Amino acid sequence: MTVIDFTAFIGRLATASGETILPFFRTSLSIDNKSSNDFDPVTEADRAAEAVMRRLIKSNFPQHGIVGEEFGNEREDADYVWVLDPIDGTKSFIAGFPIWGTLIALLHKGTPVFGMMHQPYIGERFSGDNGSANYSGPSGGRRLSVRRCTSLKEATTFTTSPLLMNPDDRARYGRVENAARLSRYGGDCYSYCMLAAGHLDLVIETGLKSYDIAGLIPIVTGAGGIVTTWDGKPAQNGGRIVAAGDARIHEAALKLLAAR
Amino acid sequence: MTVIDFTAFIGRLATASGETILPFFRTSLSIDNKSSNDFDPVTEADRAAEAVMRRLIKSNFPQHGIVGEEFGNEREDADYVWVLDPIDGTKSFIAGFPIWGTLIALLHKGTPVFGMMHQPYIGERFSGDNGSANYSGPSGGRRLSVRRCTSLKEATTFTTSPLLMNPDDRARYGRVENAARLSRYGGDCYSYCMLAAGHLDLVIETGLKSYDIAGLIPIVTGAGGIVTTWDGKPAQNGGRIVAAGDARIHEAALKLLAAR
Repeated sequence: MTVIDFTAFIGRLATASGETILPFFRTSLSIDNKSSNDFDPVTEADRAAEAVMRRLIKSNFPQHGIVGEEFGNEREDADYVWVLDPIDGTKSFIAGFPIWGTLIALLHKGTPVFGMMHQPYIGERFSGDNGSANYSGPSGGRRLSVRRCTSLKEATTFTTSPLLMNPDDRARYGRVENAARLSRYGGDCYSYCMLAAGHLDLVIETGLKSYDIAGLIPIVTGAGGIVTTWDGKPAQNGGRIVAAGDARIHEAALKLLAAR
Repeated sequence: MTVIDFTAFIGRLATASGETILPFFRTSLSIDNKSSNDFDPVTEADRAAEAVMRRLIKSNFPQHGIVGEEFGNEREDADYVWVLDPIDGTKSFIAGFPIWGTLIALLHKGTPVFGMMHQPYIGERFSGDNGSANYSGPSGGRRLSVRRCTSLKEATTFTTSPLLMNPDDRARYGRVENAARLSRYGGDCYSYCMLAAGHLDLVIETGLKSYDIAGLIPIVTGAGGIVTTWDGKPAQNGGRIVAAGDARIHEAALKLLAAR
């Protein structure tokens, strides 16, 4: 089996989506609520960027499948499937914080083989193919590599917000938080990239969709980290997710999250 | 009384501190703990940048006072006093998140008359003089202006982390959080700048030092907002702080924070 090198094409997707999104960042937007229960803003930018990426994929790879947050699934049983989240971190986006990103994943027979996180306002790209991971941005370019962390009491842990968890999951997360050296909130996709870059040790979240995590798996794995569900299963379908830079921390977190 | 225009000089301070800090961002750092109880990292970057700014101030304005986080106070009873925080948001800094900033305030007879927040990795500057406030960065340049928000149930509220509050203050903050439309964590100085830019409505924190807030007051006030302590008193000495874009939200928050 030959895996085609999609690096240049993913770069084109990121450039096109970034150009589409940026005019909407830090401007007044009409914000829809997808659900009356949760505040889950969807912006015009989100829709426009996904449409742009879908057009590029269809014209270049008409046989590929596409899974996206805004416009649903097409040919999702194809060998190659693109998983798109134009703005991961919409709450950061509408608050003007530049720690949202565009997530692009390429799955081959169900496994994420390439992923990119693009932050167009800052001009940063984090990419990976499970074997290696790279950064380019204001600091230039470099290989991404996780850091060693031998015990939870040395670990910096992140979650977007404990308020997003149900009470039982929040109690479980609380155990990890209490055992960790430092706990921080906020971040969405940005946290996983900083884990891949060796600046933090653990990201724990719940309720993720496939498009929230698929693009990040090849980056974290490529930098030497590990991403699974809380049950230790493959992460690409979303759900309750644990990402760790060091396998020992991953194992320790899984134990605390599983205990009754 | 003539107030000298210090704008160009503050720009030089920001440039010099940014050049000093950036080589340390997203690299391995030796992290000291100032206190054994709290995790309060201080980096070499923090010290080097404050030293650079102090040298510039002393050589240009030898009669001015200086208050800084790292090297203490000098001539703090002078008419003009500079208040410096090279890296506000050190926890974001060490986690690789670009939502820290360099805070520079100029006080005249105790009142902050000019403030700047500089984010050198992104290349953003937010500045204000109580009368107006401005942004320059990747999106170009523009005037900053708060947004209207008539009731808490429409408000987006920020705090760096409820874990930084004592239990009583956290319960008081919880009332505001429960009344608000959206609550987010993380941000430090960045939150105040996004409030000044009209992207969020309320920032509520505790335990701030003078250098954590003095540089932000002329920005928020210049954009049309209001910053006080939880008791409605002037904010420049720090403590428990409420910043709001709309005076009605400020009043509503003060009431909920004061109630027993």
